[in-house]
Amino acid sequence: MRHSPIATVLPTSADIDHIAGLLTLREGQSFTLMLTREVSEILDANPVFRALDANHVERREIRLDAEFELLPGLPARLVPVPGKVPLYMEEGEVRSDLEGGQAVGVAIGRGDRALWYVPGCAAMTGRLADRLAGADTILFDGTLWKDDELLDSGLSRKTGRRMGHMPMSGPGGSLEALAGLGIRRRIYVHINNTNPVLDPLSAERRAAEAAGWEIGCDQMELTC
Amino acid sequence: MRHSPIATVLPTSADIDHIAGLLTLREGQSFTLMLTREVSEILDANPVFRALDANHVERREIRLDAEFELLPGLPARLVPVPGKVPLYMEEGEVRSDLEGGQAVGVAIGRGDRALWYVPGCAAMTGRLADRLAGADTILFDGTLWKDDELLDSGLSRKTGRRMGHMPMSGPGGSLEALAGLGIRRRIYVHINNTNPVLDPLSAERRAAEAAGWEIGCDQMELTC
Repeated sequence: MRHSPIATVLPTSADIDHIAGLLTLREGQSFTLMLTREVSEILDANPVFRALDANHVERREIRLDAEFELLPGLPARLVPVPGKVPLYMEEGEVRSDLEGGQAVGVAIGRGDRALWYVPGCAAMTGRLADRLAGADTILFDGTLWKDDELLDSGLSRKTGRRMGHMPMSGPGGSLEALAGLGIRRRIYVHINNTNPVLDPLSAERRAAEAAGWEIGCDQMELTC
Repeated sequence: MRHSPIATVLPTSADIDHIAGLLTLREGQSFTLMLTREVSEILDANPVFRALDANHVERREIRLDAEFELLPGLPARLVPVPGKVPLYMEEGEVRSDLEGGQAVGVAIGRGDRALWYVPGCAAMTGRLADRLAGADTILFDGTLWKDDELLDSGLSRKTGRRMGHMPMSGPGGSLEALAGLGIRRRIYVHINNTNPVLDPLSAERRAAEAAGWEIGCDQMELTC
């Protein structure tokens, strides 16, 4: 009556869309919660997450840039990507170019067999591009098409980069930044509902697909 | 793109199933958040709830036993019901008979036109029974059929009463406690998935219905 097949949970940041789901995994289900020190500290600062009963949920802090076992026999590695603290933790001047454990990417598997999961990335750096080069598959931050998309729609006064998300299009966008890295399969995920690529008939969708990208969708299955 | 028709949110406790949904109402939607001092303090103790942007969400602390407007023209009143602090706030010996703002019932409307919402109640007191008497409709705590239901199923070592929920059946259960109070319509809500009344063919369902109760369900609509 309380079973779930989920064996490991690894939030790549402490943004609400990455951690709120933990509250629905609190009913005596056993799993391993893997996280960076920075994300772990934020959970500790919120008593509501004590709901993850230590009798069932093993918490394991993962060091950056060190191989660990995501599941038995499945090696993985966390790498820092440019990002920021969660919105609800912002105070004073906000830096979106932190490269600690606030926002990480995950490489599952090794080298040219690796699948990368990078749902939030404020900018591409040379170091990150070097790491991603030659990967098998990447699931990458597809939040916005244009950096000023939320300003245009009147929903926010912030650019995508200020929110920790590089846009798909334009100079320094992900279409440009990930072209030529020799990644076999590129899939956008974490797509905001303002992003026109969600419309299968849009010009932006055609442009993304013409550049070799797929648009992630619910119930997508990946076989490696 | 960010509209919701929800005008007011009133959590009747700070249990996770009552407050976690607030995190999905954070996208710049305007509403009024009405709560007791006790629930408000718990939200304050969890920085993750800063996600409810004060520019959009007006927080209003509601005093117990005092009429307030739930919506314009719609009077309501919060009354304490026996209960406890949320599980994640438990420390040391736990009392399930607190009658502060940890767990409240809501009377919407007045007197014999009132609709009561009481999703958690550890025990019926004479004072609470007096208040409920003669109401039009009540939505009441239907968590468990039997006080030791979770022990029997091996899911927990706690009784329903220890968790802040009086059972439906048995001495002091809600079937008995709410009989004879002259409440026109009685509906169970907050029903745990171990409760046999969820099965339309169960003997317990027949017993509850024979006692004049309805079993709440998704998409139920009430007209007053």
